[in-house]
Amino acid sequence: MDAVVLLSGGLDSYTAAAIMRQHGFDLYALSVRYGQRHGLELEAARAVAANLGVVEHREISVDLSTFGGSALTGSSAVPKDRAVGRAVVHADVGLRTPDSGIPDSGIPITYVPARNTVFLSLALAWAEVLGATDLVIGANAIDYSGYPDCRPAFLEAFEHLAAVATKAGVEGASFRIHAPLLAMTKGEIIRRGLDLGLDYGLTHSCYDPAAGGGPCRRCDSCLLRAKGFEEAGAVDPLVARLLRSRD
Amino acid sequence: MDAVVLLSGGLDSYTAAAIMRQHGFDLYALSVRYGQRHGLELEAARAVAANLGVVEHREISVDLSTFGGSALTGSSAVPKDRAVGRAVVHADVGLRTPDSGIPDSGIPITYVPARNTVFLSLALAWAEVLGATDLVIGANAIDYSGYPDCRPAFLEAFEHLAAVATKAGVEGASFRIHAPLLAMTKGEIIRRGLDLGLDYGLTHSCYDPAAGGGPCRRCDSCLLRAKGFEEAGAVDPLVARLLRSRD
Repeated sequence: MDAVVLLSGGLDSYTAAAIMRQHGFDLYALSVRYGQRHGLELEAARAVAANLGVVEHREISVDLSTFGGSALTGSSAVPKDRAVGRAVVHADVGLRTPDSGIPDSGIPITYVPARNTVFLSLALAWAEVLGATDLVIGANAIDYSGYPDCRPAFLEAFEHLAAVATKAGVEGASFRIHAPLLAMTKGEIIRRGLDLGLDYGLTHSCYDPAAGGGPCRRCDSCLLRAKGFEEAGAVDPLVARLLRSRD
Repeated sequence: MDAVVLLSGGLDSYTAAAIMRQHGFDLYALSVRYGQRHGLELEAARAVAANLGVVEHREISVDLSTFGGSALTGSSAVPKDRAVGRAVVHADVGLRTPDSGIPDSGIPITYVPARNTVFLSLALAWAEVLGATDLVIGANAIDYSGYPDCRPAFLEAFEHLAAVATKAGVEGASFRIHAPLLAMTKGEIIRRGLDLGLDYGLTHSCYDPAAGGGPCRRCDSCLLRAKGFEEAGAVDPLVARLLRSRD
């Protein structure tokens, strides 16, 4: 069975892909260049795709910064040193972290509009060409507040859309949007990945990396990643490497 | 009321936009560069946007030819001189015409996978930034065979997806996908547009234009357009211009 997996270069999508591989799927990895600040995510996506042994890895560009409004597409500063709480929503595919320290603050500065809808649409386009009906997204939602497109209701709506939007669907095929991390904590995700033998030293999570590409350890994504490794009782190989380089 | 309208530079999306303008909407036009053979469509989209007096016109690139498989994204030859029947499906946004002369031939060579899903997702991204809940597509389906993503079922599924994918939707807003041409013949579309005072000389429909940019008059899109003008009892200003230039 073939599955199209959205691969960002972060640890969530890497882990989601590995879980699907364990379930017997042949992986077709899709990375989306959507106007990120830096190309490090895509370099990481290539390394992760190679490590996973995917059948094919394709990259597609769509500049969502055209529509404005997100720190992740380069139009605002990345916040630093904020509290990263337990009730946090994080979708690694594309990297998104909420203003968890600020109650009900509306759409966070790192939010990219309709991103999961756009990404799944692109995955659907490739799936249609491949004849595949399984899509994989590393979406992760410990609670659902503020991130509509990480909820089960969104994933189900996309499954229905795929069924009516495609020739295969009309002919009776069922599409599945797999989000194996949906109900897992960051610590559980990392523990699962380590059990699967994943090398998280290949991944990239930082929103605002230093000149050498190392993590800043202060942005929401770095703080959430650190919390996850702590919960998993493991050492982040990226941080270990950074600390070694300073010796 | 603001509406995001997908504008291809063809006559269907131009007419759909004009109908929405007549209904009192302020238009935000979005054109998608998706790996077309030529830039004439986008030049036409700019001219049409100016003629409509849209509030803003934005262009976004997404190279769907990454996934292969369509004559419209440059990987195959454009068919010529085929019968263009009455039971034809044509979505002007992006230009799609079926193998109407070949019964049940499967996906036609001019088919772009999941195109309307991708295009509406991009329109939704912009709508989310604008705070708009009305999207407009020039989709046109005289019958539904072979083109799943021109059916009312597809448009309804996308409305539901938009409601669960966005913050506005979760807060109770309803999204509408307007497809005002859905049940109209090509002749009816052109008649309606002429009644609205549209200048179809600004549009571009040809899949395979000559060096000077004039229509080939032999591809499916040119043949369908000619049939539409004939049904509307009108002269195509593009053809009139071409014939004058030969005098």
